[in-house]
Amino acid sequence: MSEAVCPVARSLDVLGDPWTLLVLREVFSGNRRFDGIKAGLGITDTVLSNRLQRLVDEGLLDRSPYGGTVRPRVEYVLTEAGEDTLPVLHALARWGRRHTTSPVRGGGILLVECLECGQPSESADWCTTCVAPLNRDRTGWRRASEPEKLIALATA
Amino acid sequence: MSEAVCPVARSLDVLGDPWTLLVLREVFSGNRRFDGIKAGLGITDTVLSNRLQRLVDEGLLDRSPYGGTVRPRVEYVLTEAGEDTLPVLHALARWGRRHTTSPVRGGGILLVECLECGQPSESADWCTTCVAPLNRDRTGWRRASEPEKLIALATA
Repeated sequence: MSEAVCPVARSLDVLGDPWTLLVLREVFSGNRRFDGIKAGLGITDTVLSNRLQRLVDEGLLDRSPYGGTVRPRVEYVLTEAGEDTLPVLHALARWGRRHTTSPVRGGGILLVECLECGQPSESADWCTTCVAPLNRDRTGWRRASEPEKLIALATA
Repeated sequence: MSEAVCPVARSLDVLGDPWTLLVLREVFSGNRRFDGIKAGLGITDTVLSNRLQRLVDEGLLDRSPYGGTVRPRVEYVLTEAGEDTLPVLHALARWGRRHTTSPVRGGGILLVECLECGQPSESADWCTTCVAPLNRDRTGWRRASEPEKLIALATA
């Protein structure tokens, strides 16, 4: 638990590690299992185990069993505190799109779209058409590589 | 320069270090000189020098001379790319306020307010009353410790 007075510093005590935010990005995208996240990030078992354990300990992820009782396994699901990191990821994505150069033309670019009105948003956390918060149920993504496919965040 | 396809990962290659974001927080708050930032963060000369140099190299800060010609010194000013990190800091602050506990009642809490309409915003980067981007000229802060004092970001 951070003792910092500044809420930015307290956030960074939990989120201020690049792998932690990239693990959250994977889970938001529907990649919820250890092996999948490991493959998605090219990360070692030890680093990934540490980050996942920390995210569970800090209350951002829950472990959810799947696959029956013989060989039970877990996948990671976002808690409310985990879901609330979405504006941080969106703000980072917007900065990255604006101020860094993608090695692939249009590759991986994520457009944030409101599922209520179908319009892209100019804000990281707010539908600028409906004038309402872009919560999990309202948020969709389109990748520039597959612009015809709308990914609903809630079911990703 | 990051080679990552994902804009979140490219952002984190520049911003994914807690000290880097805390240095930017200081400069946004008007603390622009080496000794002041060092005192504000309780950071060593070496770590601070490295982070400032990296922020200059990546185009987020510029060095601006002050104090005449006999003993010229520099202060650090935000470039456009630096100013555009504001939604990242606001998103982190919002998450920290919501999901971590301040050791001081109300201490250091930053309320984001639109200078056009005088209303606090529910978004990290958008005035939810005016329905317009919270750019540098439009953004004000109030600290819970001094709620009567409105700090205009542009002149902080």
